[in-house]
Amino acid sequence: MTERFTVTYHVRGDAASIEARAQAIAVEQSVEMPLAAIDEPAILSEIVGKVEAINDLGNGTFSVRIGLALATVGDDPGQLLNMLFGNTSLHDDVILRDAVIPERLRAHSGGAPELRRRLGVPRRAFTGSALKPQGLAPDRLADLAERFARGGLDFIKDDHGLADQAYSPFATRVPLIAEAVARGARSTGVATRYIPSLTGDLDQLRAQATIARNCGLDCMMVAPMVTGFSSVRALTRAFPEVVFFAHPSMGGAARIAPELLIGRLFPALGCGAVIFPTYGGRFGYSPATCRELATNARPALAVPAGGIALDRVSELLDFYGSDTMLLIGGSLLLARDRVTEASAAFADAVMRYGVSEHGC
Amino acid sequence: MTERFTVTYHVRGDAASIEARAQAIAVEQSVEMPLAAIDEPAILSEIVGKVEAINDLGNGTFSVRIGLALATVGDDPGQLLNMLFGNTSLHDDVILRDAVIPERLRAHSGGAPELRRRLGVPRRAFTGSALKPQGLAPDRLADLAERFARGGLDFIKDDHGLADQAYSPFATRVPLIAEAVARGARSTGVATRYIPSLTGDLDQLRAQATIARNCGLDCMMVAPMVTGFSSVRALTRAFPEVVFFAHPSMGGAARIAPELLIGRLFPALGCGAVIFPTYGGRFGYSPATCRELATNARPALAVPAGGIALDRVSELLDFYGSDTMLLIGGSLLLARDRVTEASAAFADAVMRYGVSEHGC
Repeated sequence: MTERFTVTYHVRGDAASIEARAQAIAVEQSVEMPLAAIDEPAILSEIVGKVEAINDLGNGTFSVRIGLALATVGDDPGQLLNMLFGNTSLHDDVILRDAVIPERLRAHSGGAPELRRRLGVPRRAFTGSALKPQGLAPDRLADLAERFARGGLDFIKDDHGLADQAYSPFATRVPLIAEAVARGARSTGVATRYIPSLTGDLDQLRAQATIARNCGLDCMMVAPMVTGFSSVRALTRAFPEVVFFAHPSMGGAARIAPELLIGRLFPALGCGAVIFPTYGGRFGYSPATCRELATNARPALAVPAGGIALDRVSELLDFYGSDTMLLIGGSLLLARDRVTEASAAFADAVMRYGVSEHGC
Repeated sequence: MTERFTVTYHVRGDAASIEARAQAIAVEQSVEMPLAAIDEPAILSEIVGKVEAINDLGNGTFSVRIGLALATVGDDPGQLLNMLFGNTSLHDDVILRDAVIPERLRAHSGGAPELRRRLGVPRRAFTGSALKPQGLAPDRLADLAERFARGGLDFIKDDHGLADQAYSPFATRVPLIAEAVARGARSTGVATRYIPSLTGDLDQLRAQATIARNCGLDCMMVAPMVTGFSSVRALTRAFPEVVFFAHPSMGGAARIAPELLIGRLFPALGCGAVIFPTYGGRFGYSPATCRELATNARPALAVPAGGIALDRVSELLDFYGSDTMLLIGGSLLLARDRVTEASAAFADAVMRYGVSEHGC
């Protein structure tokens, strides 16, 4: 018996044609050829995708569940993506809505519990901000990082636009910022972590991760849709002691539901935290999407971001719970000279939320 | 003076809000923070994206041209994608429509002229087919490949679903198929090329390319949206003698215009041929999209595919011209025992097209 895993697509169509369309997707995402030209019975029964269910969701949309053969994926997460949605991404009537990720393709990261242990934060939510704007020289970025850290934030991450540019090369920037954050952290007693952003091909990613590790860093960021799933998996495997934060850059381009892409697939690559645009910010994800995404991602830490104002701390912690890191960038940076005080107010709001409303 | 390159987005909106929306995209794709919080004048003038033009296209769609600073990209094609569309991909009112790719980020491949030289085909279009279904054992795939080759096809490629699965591991499959194609080619005198599909992380890609090169192969396939732009560039740089065919898997045409993604970006990674779903097949690209894509891609070889029937050879060559490889898979495979004869009929149709209608 062939092992299959179930993939759910949402397909625009009508009742008269949906069965044929579902069957066409099952073929496209497996053998990609006319079944009439296949003469080996085992391929027809074990390799060709199988339509398992079709449900009418109303409004001309159908949920189509297809069982794909695990054998077609092998062990490569890039090939998983290829089999989940490769050619079908080119059809604009289909969204990849969900998938049961095969266990053997799921890397496991300590996620939120591991971060709680490392930072000594047993219950409350985490706080974080981002180093911006790109274009600042390394010493200016380090100065900003120290001021964030002196406010007592848990995490300070590179803006995802920071790569290995001439104005702030990775090898110069990261050691300076790591030292600055360590100085700030010593002044507060908070175990603040700096999260550098890794970019480039796998050789460059490994070289950067080695530089960061040599600076004592144990949290790093990567953007799986830019980097490629296979190379992210190679990286998380090569640096098992690092908690990787997944950035959603390029996550919208392929019509994959974020509940799946960010909530399930990025953690399956071994990422222990997932950054995503929260409802109510500058992006359009709904509360329902955000809730499902965060739930799917567990135990990976949920990191809502994308235009969070300081006055939303209570609302967002009510919504997401405490296995969360709130990532507030622009709203703190607007405090300019008083960025340390704004950071402290943010850290304090998260701390007080735990105490006053939940007795911990 | 900062060097900028122009990126064109198509944005749904209304006349009252489009200027603010365009400015927000320019900020999102550069510094990603409130401009009021930036106190360095050089960043405001040299790093922040600049709205260059807004044109009303009608139907509630605007074309927005933004000049991005080349300095924000550096030399990494992954970072190029990040700056072109990273966060904005998460906004569903925007399509990335076009971009002028900075010269220093453009790798150059011999493309169609180089393939003409290698195969000794000075003028006519090329023919190709695909090895399917996945699930066949290596000796069965090799047998099919030989039968295609005996029909006189120019190229025989792996199905993009063929990776490194247990039923046909790369290291077993590729040498067998390469030998089979060479046998077939000796029987016809056509310089038939086998194009294996490379998958996995950069280490795996290089190992596979080395196996393929050791089999004497000089054409290989890769799917840049699965593999990641940076690793594809590392691969094309490491194997300069190989002509890489780009497969559109995960190309998600709805959000990045294929004219840009497949037509400009894939060749810029060093790919010398681009496979794309042609109009009139199983996918929905329009003739206008296909024409622009093929034109943009030059000198990379245009490879229309995706459900081409044998009787469309003349029509498609009229449309695409002869710097084209027609890729016909399923339609040949349906001939089953007579796949060699069907391949020969295909090769002959392309040959005769050149002679009878164009006198060459």
